[in-house]
Amino acid sequence: MAITVVGSVAFDTIETPAGRRDRCLGGAATYFSLAASFFTDVRVIAVVGEDFGEEQEAVFHARNIDTRGIERATGKSFFWEGSYLEDLNEAKTHNTELNVFAAFEPKIPAEYNDSQFLFLANIDPVLQRRVREAMPGVKLVAGDTMNYWIKDHRAALLDVLKGIDLLLINDTEARMLAGNNNLVQAARVVLAMGPRTLIVKHGEYGATAFFSRQSFSPKDESAEHHPFRAPALPLEEVVDPTGAGDSFAGGFFGYLASQPDLTPAAFRRAMFYGSVMGSFACECFGTERLQTLTRKEIDDRFIVFRELTHLD
Amino acid sequence: MAITVVGSVAFDTIETPAGRRDRCLGGAATYFSLAASFFTDVRVIAVVGEDFGEEQEAVFHARNIDTRGIERATGKSFFWEGSYLEDLNEAKTHNTELNVFAAFEPKIPAEYNDSQFLFLANIDPVLQRRVREAMPGVKLVAGDTMNYWIKDHRAALLDVLKGIDLLLINDTEARMLAGNNNLVQAARVVLAMGPRTLIVKHGEYGATAFFSRQSFSPKDESAEHHPFRAPALPLEEVVDPTGAGDSFAGGFFGYLASQPDLTPAAFRRAMFYGSVMGSFACECFGTERLQTLTRKEIDDRFIVFRELTHLD
Repeated sequence: MAITVVGSVAFDTIETPAGRRDRCLGGAATYFSLAASFFTDVRVIAVVGEDFGEEQEAVFHARNIDTRGIERATGKSFFWEGSYLEDLNEAKTHNTELNVFAAFEPKIPAEYNDSQFLFLANIDPVLQRRVREAMPGVKLVAGDTMNYWIKDHRAALLDVLKGIDLLLINDTEARMLAGNNNLVQAARVVLAMGPRTLIVKHGEYGATAFFSRQSFSPKDESAEHHPFRAPALPLEEVVDPTGAGDSFAGGFFGYLASQPDLTPAAFRRAMFYGSVMGSFACECFGTERLQTLTRKEIDDRFIVFRELTHLD
Repeated sequence: MAITVVGSVAFDTIETPAGRRDRCLGGAATYFSLAASFFTDVRVIAVVGEDFGEEQEAVFHARNIDTRGIERATGKSFFWEGSYLEDLNEAKTHNTELNVFAAFEPKIPAEYNDSQFLFLANIDPVLQRRVREAMPGVKLVAGDTMNYWIKDHRAALLDVLKGIDLLLINDTEARMLAGNNNLVQAARVVLAMGPRTLIVKHGEYGATAFFSRQSFSPKDESAEHHPFRAPALPLEEVVDPTGAGDSFAGGFFGYLASQPDLTPAAFRRAMFYGSVMGSFACECFGTERLQTLTRKEIDDRFIVFRELTHLD
């Protein structure tokens, strides 16, 4: 089933211990789309400036991603500059220019309306909510957010959380959103805000899903579900962690959208595919690795992840 | 097969968000012994002062732990005071009194000589080496250390590492010991120092084992082994994390000592049992939870850990 994703398509300048790239293609919606495209049809809603040309568009088209929802505006695309020189787990932001993103008004092409899955990447919760409401027919909605919205736009964020089935955030964001440092307790607080399922991303340590009684389809008889933890792969070299979380989300949600039912088993495999895509994203700068990837490489790594965690 | 452990038996004063305990029984050898005692016979080598009485000794005897190697010296036992008020993942040390431990000269009772497993808990590497050399007949030696020895007693530590099969340390220690921030690369450097296997403990995120070609018995035909990652359990409440790492070591090594062969499958289960024991240790202050624990509770939680990580 097709996924529509709304979020940023951007240019990033990135410096890591492995080197530097100037103005490479980035943005949450870009990483998400590329990762999800290995599993299902993906449609993007975003805004770009005049600096977004055929070269960038070709990256999407090579993966059969529908770009009819990428609006061209006068001006420059969203730009981010950051480095990971001291700590590969945390970006240091040097510059953020919203540019055309400052006036972004998401427009949904009519062709996207039969999408059954919707991913609200990390943007202003007011825009997330607008897209959510404009697509009432979707079957499953997942979303991301960040500390900035949690801290300074809490009311708008709480509003959008009511319409989200699956929230994907990191440890710090989960603790901040819940106002509780214990992850299990924080998860319970977040699940009471609306999402039926919470996935907390731990960076190099993987991700944990916390479930509520409404996490799965009514066919599922189990009264309650233990949390599930997918590992991350210990990598020989992390070239650039930018987009790893969005690639996790893309692999996870893409795989889920390719499955007939939202069963606990499908969910677990989706978590592993999320981790697999996150691990690939770190291997090269920007989206380079996602561009050259094949489904066979993905499935081979899935087996490595199973090896990494399974008793037998 | 029996394990001999050398390390600290101490009194701890601990403050956490859950409360405070004054002078409760602690020390690495204590946590290790209690955790390992659920799987195999355990024998302790340590030194205590006149404040160590029948009440403390009874904790060991209740778990059938051999205390003939616990020497009674004139003076007070090792004492540590710390708190976890800001961060449950990192203790803030307020006071350390070595007391009788300052002049510790490990003495090995003749009855311990048929031990096939030896655990060198975190003490001066000079003492670790002395015990190692005094027990040449042991089949498998595991050890722990800490930043202090890595930084200021490097030569002595490198010396003892040559005689250790299995090293258990945390992320920071592994990176510091190897002088490399990438965990996979750091593991390779540490494995070249002597240990055949390295287990890196990640606190609330579990632990990862890195193997060399010599990790398993010659019966094992596989040329190389991927790393293996055991999760930690997301806990509703962490009452006191003191001793969680030593309890992990005890559960891990205790289970391994109970197995006929050091196969990859036994090793994986041992990692899970280590995580299980670490999770119990955090549930009450000091050794309280390990004292009341039953083997059935351990095996039930092992199943929860499997649920937490397995795809099917």
